[in-house]
Amino acid sequence: MAMTCSVTIRRARRDDVGIIVGMLADDPLGSARERLEDPLPPCYFRAFEALDADPNIRLVVAQDGEGAVVGCLQLCILPGLSSQGASRGLIEDVRVATHCRSRGIGEQMVQWAVAEAHTRGCKLVELLTHQSRVDAQRFYKRLGFQPSHVGMTLRF
Amino acid sequence: MAMTCSVTIRRARRDDVGIIVGMLADDPLGSARERLEDPLPPCYFRAFEALDADPNIRLVVAQDGEGAVVGCLQLCILPGLSSQGASRGLIEDVRVATHCRSRGIGEQMVQWAVAEAHTRGCKLVELLTHQSRVDAQRFYKRLGFQPSHVGMTLRF
Repeated sequence: MAMTCSVTIRRARRDDVGIIVGMLADDPLGSARERLEDPLPPCYFRAFEALDADPNIRLVVAQDGEGAVVGCLQLCILPGLSSQGASRGLIEDVRVATHCRSRGIGEQMVQWAVAEAHTRGCKLVELLTHQSRVDAQRFYKRLGFQPSHVGMTLRF
Repeated sequence: MAMTCSVTIRRARRDDVGIIVGMLADDPLGSARERLEDPLPPCYFRAFEALDADPNIRLVVAQDGEGAVVGCLQLCILPGLSSQGASRGLIEDVRVATHCRSRGIGEQMVQWAVAEAHTRGCKLVELLTHQSRVDAQRFYKRLGFQPSHVGMTLRF
């Protein structure tokens, strides 16, 4: 069994965008959706600027002891009226670099997101994970998530 | 079969908050979570102000020909890096007043949200619906949504 790798969770910067897109593309579902080109298409930087300017969105990366980015996660804090006006946390785009899996990096990122959502007054954290990602579902259950909902999607 | 009721979808106002909370509370899952009191607890108005100030969030109501509010829906437009930096639309808190169900009101609201998400550059619209809401799942499938994901939640 691989050793646990203790990581630092920090806010993503513009110069992390390339490595984040690399992780999003290195995935059975993501590979067809991304354009991992050099230079990276400007659409990614435009999206980074939009999300980075939004106080309700935090795109973070996990950085290992040598400063390498080995994971990413996006947390959205969503105000709403339900549950007595409590915000909800939505976790998206969780990825760990292929060569760094099974070292507790995803767990540290998700625990950060859950703690951050709690600090910001959320009563609920939610996420959608593809039906085919059985390992991910087991992972989230271990961290206290319940498969309580059906995640429905419509793609244009 | 009940007639279709054509509704106007408009942005929610502060004076709609009471009726929206009434619809959220009038639900097997929502009734235990809300505080439908007179006057309404200030937490709901604080949440309304937060979401109303957020350009990425649209809380809308459906209004019938006589001006009565008979439904609500919240759409969040979420920027992100994945899918070439496309935003995602997240639909939440869809409710139709009990006495107005089966008249196409939910469909008109969801179609509005899908069109709005498309206009705002989303490539994907997503939502979570509780496993127990089998009718809702059938409804969303009819509107083109796929039950592609597991919706996982952690409640504090």
